[in-house]
Amino acid sequence: MEFSAQAIATFLGGQVEGNPDIKVNTVAKIEEGKPGALSFLSNPKYEKYIYETQSSVVLVNNDLVLEQEVSCTLIRVPNAYESFAKLLELVNQAKGAKTGVHKQAAIEPSATIGQDAYIGAFVYIGENVTIGKNTKIYPNSYIGDNAKVGDNTIIYAGVKVYDECVVGSSCVLHAGAVIGSDGFGFAPQPDGSYHKIPQIGNVVLEDNVEIGANTTIDRATMGSTIIRKGAKLDNLIQIAHNVDIGENTVIAAQTGIAGSTKIGKNCMFGGQVGIIGHISIAEGVKLSAQTGISNSVKKPGEVLIGSPAMSAGQFHRSFVLFRNFPEIRKEIDSIRRRLDAISE
Amino acid sequence: MEFSAQAIATFLGGQVEGNPDIKVNTVAKIEEGKPGALSFLSNPKYEKYIYETQSSVVLVNNDLVLEQEVSCTLIRVPNAYESFAKLLELVNQAKGAKTGVHKQAAIEPSATIGQDAYIGAFVYIGENVTIGKNTKIYPNSYIGDNAKVGDNTIIYAGVKVYDECVVGSSCVLHAGAVIGSDGFGFAPQPDGSYHKIPQIGNVVLEDNVEIGANTTIDRATMGSTIIRKGAKLDNLIQIAHNVDIGENTVIAAQTGIAGSTKIGKNCMFGGQVGIIGHISIAEGVKLSAQTGISNSVKKPGEVLIGSPAMSAGQFHRSFVLFRNFPEIRKEIDSIRRRLDAISE
Amino acid sequence: MEFSAQAIATFLGGQVEGNPDIKVNTVAKIEEGKPGALSFLSNPKYEKYIYETQSSVVLVNNDLVLEQEVSCTLIRVPNAYESFAKLLELVNQAKGAKTGVHKQAAIEPSATIGQDAYIGAFVYIGENVTIGKNTKIYPNSYIGDNAKVGDNTIIYAGVKVYDECVVGSSCVLHAGAVIGSDGFGFAPQPDGSYHKIPQIGNVVLEDNVEIGANTTIDRATMGSTIIRKGAKLDNLIQIAHNVDIGENTVIAAQTGIAGSTKIGKNCMFGGQVGIIGHISIAEGVKLSAQTGISNSVKKPGEVLIGSPAMSAGQFHRSFVLFRNFPEIRKEIDSIRRRLDAISE
Repeated sequence: MEFSAQAIATFLGGQVEGNPDIKVNTVAKIEEGKPGALSFLSNPKYEKYIYETQSSVVLVNNDLVLEQEVSCTLIRVPNAYESFAKLLELVNQAKGAKTGVHKQAAIEPSATIGQDAYIGAFVYIGENVTIGKNTKIYPNSYIGDNAKVGDNTIIYAGVKVYDECVVGSSCVLHAGAVIGSDGFGFAPQPDGSYHKIPQIGNVVLEDNVEIGANTTIDRATMGSTIIRKGAKLDNLIQIAHNVDIGENTVIAAQTGIAGSTKIGKNCMFGGQVGIIGHISIAEGVKLSAQTGISNSVKKPGEVLIGSPAMSAGQFHRSFVLFRNFPEIRKEIDSIRRRLDAISE
Repeated sequence: MEFSAQAIATFLGGQVEGNPDIKVNTVAKIEEGKPGALSFLSNPKYEKYIYETQSSVVLVNNDLVLEQEVSCTLIRVPNAYESFAKLLELVNQAKGAKTGVHKQAAIEPSATIGQDAYIGAFVYIGENVTIGKNTKIYPNSYIGDNAKVGDNTIIYAGVKVYDECVVGSSCVLHAGAVIGSDGFGFAPQPDGSYHKIPQIGNVVLEDNVEIGANTTIDRATMGSTIIRKGAKLDNLIQIAHNVDIGENTVIAAQTGIAGSTKIGKNCMFGGQVGIIGHISIAEGVKLSAQTGISNSVKKPGEVLIGSPAMSAGQFHRSFVLFRNFPEIRKEIDSIRRRLDAISE
Repeated sequence: MEFSAQAIATFLGGQVEGNPDIKVNTVAKIEEGKPGALSFLSNPKYEKYIYETQSSVVLVNNDLVLEQEVSCTLIRVPNAYESFAKLLELVNQAKGAKTGVHKQAAIEPSATIGQDAYIGAFVYIGENVTIGKNTKIYPNSYIGDNAKVGDNTIIYAGVKVYDECVVGSSCVLHAGAVIGSDGFGFAPQPDGSYHKIPQIGNVVLEDNVEIGANTTIDRATMGSTIIRKGAKLDNLIQIAHNVDIGENTVIAAQTGIAGSTKIGKNCMFGGQVGIIGHISIAEGVKLSAQTGISNSVKKPGEVLIGSPAMSAGQFHRSFVLFRNFPEIRKEIDSIRRRLDAISE
């Protein structure tokens, strides 16, 4: 596929500055530009690249002020980043969506498959499962008995959805994700061994949820572990039984949340965060990477860091002093010596 | 299914207090109770809910003293939590166990499958594998050549057991778990590259072991990586080559244990703990979440926290001071100024 | 298989000390030796075991000086560890390599499979995929459309390689690894929800790369996430979109590297390390387990520890003082009291 700068500008509602007939057939980052590529400039940090990029066309914000001449053709739009994302979506759609049921899939007769769904090779669909319209399930995935999957959802290869679990519409589940494994619950016995507590609840993913590769979400002991609409979970995250993640909360990779904890909406957690069980986190809370939370966070929008966690400001003030601890130690020694001298 | 309070009390050997004929057909947490549901009360923290729950029947401990009237029917038993777990098991069993070999499974002719085993769709069973009686292997799992799996074990969907590995009886392996991947061993070469050290050992899971979703257990370089009987491992845990985990040790999610380390029995580790290789941890040791262990722990029952780890008491005393470091810094400055004034 | 000490010595170019005719049929660690086994001694820490091992034959370094008599037969070689690894490789090869395409694999007609490749049961090979010569793909793996896999590569069970990704020659991908899942990129919307940024790049694994079990490597937003030749990644690692890992860099389990970060060659990272996005790490940098890196590391070969990271020496000096913080606190109090006494 090849498009002219003018065609792209028309599609995006932007203005061409330069050669409207120049054609592009791929995309590239502005700092890795090449002839025939379309790039974008949004972050001012990258502004210098506009003067040296090899890309043929660059999307820029309306308010960009050039400090010297550029050799590429510009397309001015209100938001270069969003316009670029819109084009990427077009590219993605142009790949062509999979449809149809592969002849080597195994679907129980009691299951219902929606219109235009794609069921790849070696997918197993259990008893009484419902798969929505236009949903795509890639090869080697497993959907257990009585599970429900909504419309327009993408389940990539090798995902495991246990029985009774519910996946909403317009969700994306990446390869190897596990939805509905048993919560980690054992009753200690007098002889030191453990007796398994049956986990008879399920997992509910509401609409527009994204689950990263190899992320694991345990089913509730009773009731549901819930990931609310619009929440986005990165790869290798652990969500324990009966956790409740609020709407539009975003969680980076390798974070773990222990059992029965409730996370508010619009939170943002960095990677490798750990959150203890049976607590609540208010809405809009931000946690830096590797933060450890062992108590409820009640103040909406709080920004925390460290393990155990402190406010970001407090942490950094204390940490600077930790780093200079040997100097402080020397200072105390010097004070003591001066005092000794005075006292003599 | 529907049961009367009397029927449940009789099954559990308990006493009904209220309407013996009231019927329940589901279970619910006491704070999420609804008519027709059975709940339990064990933790005194939840006692207030007994006066407001909508549940029809609540299991309580024999010694519970009511402070006001309740509208639900009570069943008094010696241990409400355990009795409830017993009922959950019944519910679980009532789901009906899978049996039979799916026609789209692939089983090498030299493999042996025990009586009443379930082999799901797209399960691959390699050469000379032995699968025990009543063992269930869910779809898309892989059992490599010469592996052995005991009786009454459940292997959920998409589990990978490499060749030569041994899984005991009455184990549970959750979806995506990997048993027997190569240990991470490479010999540095003069040119900076690495030469792989073959990993020819295996993994042995003894009886009653539970392995969480997407947990990985590497095979030994030589000999065996061993998870001893009754040990319970949560999701996304990493167990490196030649590690030895003691009986009835319980490990929470995302913990990692490096090569050749030996963990005693009856230990309890929180989530995201990291333990260095080639050390020993005594029996009954408790590690808080995110703890980092870089030396052997020789004292049985020790409780450690922090990275590097310290005793819990010592850590908290030091951490309180870390949090107040800026105040301490000011105090030292004030002392110096007073000293300067005196010295002048 | 059974070999005499003399046959092994001849193969390795070593010298027998003891009975050249004694035969071995297995290998064992020197501290777990048994009759009929071959062991090795390389690390002086294990030297005591040579006097008590039950193994029949032990490989030792040429320069080993015995302090007492030994009952086993020795084979002296220049490097006992490397010679032993060489023998392990022989054992490994003797297992016999898999070949052929399983009749229950699904291969799109447009795919190309190289000579002597092994394609296991329930493997799906997408449109236009190229699989190199002598490459082994174990059961239940998925290779998406237009992906390329080089020669002599081993892809263990249940690996997922997304469309368009490239896997080099002589690579090893362990079970459950995910190559090419979407990068975690979302544009915040005015209503608090997030809009997915399409991730249209790919992942490139160069030659001789090893990827651990259940490790996840996200595809680039544009361009490629690159793991350069000879890099070795352990289990459960997260590599975000557009990361670039240098040649022969070795990364231990559960480490996470955020988006667009560039790691130099010959680095060594411990387990559970976290590295923030959009930074650079110089070549030869060593990071201790659980280290957190939030700024670029510009000095080649630097050794860092802690979160946030400091030089190892600095960290240990400060940490000793942190551990003694309560004592320091008392010292400051005592100084203040002395000063108060003087000031009165």
